Amino acid sequence: MPVFEHEARVRYSDTDVSSRIHNAAMLVHFENAEADFLRHLGMPLSVMSTMHLGFPRVHVEADFLAPMKYDDLMQIAVSVERLGNSSYTLAFAARVDQTPTAKGKITVVCVDPTTGRSTAIPESMRAALTAYQQSQ
Amino acid sequence: MPVFEHEARVRYSDTDVSSRIHNAAMLVHFENAEADFLRHLGMPLSVMSTMHLGFPRVHVEADFLAPMKYDDLMQIAVSVERLGNSSYTLAFAARVDQTPTAKGKITVVCVDPTTGRSTAIPESMRAALTAYQQSQ
Amino acid sequence: MPVFEHEARVRYSDTDVSSRIHNAAMLVHFENAEADFLRHLGMPLSVMSTMHLGFPRVHVEADFLAPMKYDDLMQIAVSVERLGNSSYTLAFAARVDQTPTAKGKITVVCVDPTTGRSTAIPESMRAALTAYQQSQ
Amino acid sequence: MPVFEHEARVRYSDTDVSSRIHNAAMLVHFENAEADFLRHLGMPLSVMSTMHLGFPRVHVEADFLAPMKYDDLMQIAVSVERLGNSSYTLAFAARVDQTPTAKGKITVVCVDPTTGRSTAIPESMRAALTAYQQSQ
Repeated sequence: MPVFEHEARVRYSDTDVSSRIHNAAMLVHFENAEADFLRHLGMPLSVMSTMHLGFPRVHVEADFLAPMKYDDLMQIAVSVERLGNSSYTLAFAARVDQTPTAKGKITVVCVDPTTGRSTAIPESMRAALTAYQQSQ
Repeated sequence: MPVFEHEARVRYSDTDVSSRIHNAAMLVHFENAEADFLRHLGMPLSVMSTMHLGFPRVHVEADFLAPMKYDDLMQIAVSVERLGNSSYTLAFAARVDQTPTAKGKITVVCVDPTTGRSTAIPESMRAALTAYQQSQ
Repeated sequence: MPVFEHEARVRYSDTDVSSRIHNAAMLVHFENAEADFLRHLGMPLSVMSTMHLGFPRVHVEADFLAPMKYDDLMQIAVSVERLGNSSYTLAFAARVDQTPTAKGKITVVCVDPTTGRSTAIPESMRAALTAYQQSQ
Repeated sequence: MPVFEHEARVRYSDTDVSSRIHNAAMLVHFENAEADFLRHLGMPLSVMSTMHLGFPRVHVEADFLAPMKYDDLMQIAVSVERLGNSSYTLAFAARVDQTPTAKGKITVVCVDPTTGRSTAIPESMRAALTAYQQSQ
């Protein structure tokens, strides 16, 4: 499988008085990349949640390498950094044209909402994430 | 009762590349003013929702009169513009020092979540909003 | 010219505890629709601002007609409601499938940043907005 | 000096469909805690930037330990984790009542906007951060 890239624009509301993208807005773009990546793998979170599972984030981070400005078109590559029994970590690498501009990570735990405890990632999700991971 | 004023700062994340507060951020400040106003009246929405009621917004608007910059300290005065059977409209007037900077309105409908239909505003809420409105 | 429609998804960060899109997030989607509409007309605001002009918003509003949920795919139609000498008002109509879900307006004033005063909309922008308006 | 704690409420716009605070909203609260911490030390960033310095973030992160819900009142303790020549890292620990709910870090680089390069943190800022750090 080719690397999945999510395309997104720096929107006016994403910017701040420094003329760059605001740091929290970048985390939203990473999360949108995750959503579109899972949709691309056939498992949108909106569907997964009908399986009575929750997917809270337990860790998020971002590194900023170069300024991203209003209207910049970002390409955000997604990779599976870690796939555990009940959690996964996705890594993100954003670029504008060929310039790397930011990196990020999101760690998600699969939770049973009735108990509030972590539970195994659904088998279909595990299979799809594994296949993507191994193809990289 | 004196006019209720909600104090709020223009946060870094509220600004955009124009060096002003972003328009959608102002609507969040108006909503926060509503929340603190209702708390001040003894009826925080977080408590009202334990009465199995929803309070979706059906209309929001804002007028921008003067630029608001990073770190500006805003005072947002709240008034009850309209009090209907199942809805209310609050009006907001923001100033920085003595300069009027923005105005806004939020119209909220009280909804029964089980039916999705509008329902009468709880009597305690009506009484408090009426008392505030008449004291202005 | 056909009606310009901006396609956008309700993102996780757009939602709130009511399970709907948050009102301020909808205003960001309307603003994104404006940006893509102007880009479609050949005049992205990122380019217009190199003409030493500012385009602050003086009025924004939204009406909510039906709930929009996480992952809903919205189509936001754009129309030119008013075209003045130094300002314009765009109107927005959002739908999910064929259900109208929200309406909105944004009024923008063209400003000379050196004086802070309103100034005439650039002729190229006026011509493009007029052509779109007359074709509807 | 006592530990500096920034008090902040989980606002409606901070929540998402999971009924918790959204991860990016937590990063905004950490940033607000930084702003109020620096103001408390007598060096608001709004003033520092009049010294022709920029303070872009190069790294942000957050760990989520327990759900934070609408209207929760958070106390966010601030510590100086690292103080370099041209950068600093602040650490944040959020609690609701006595329950730890989130941790975070922000690394900021002091930049000369004319060159875009890192430059020494102003001496007054270094002195204040050092004094706070040593008193903990």
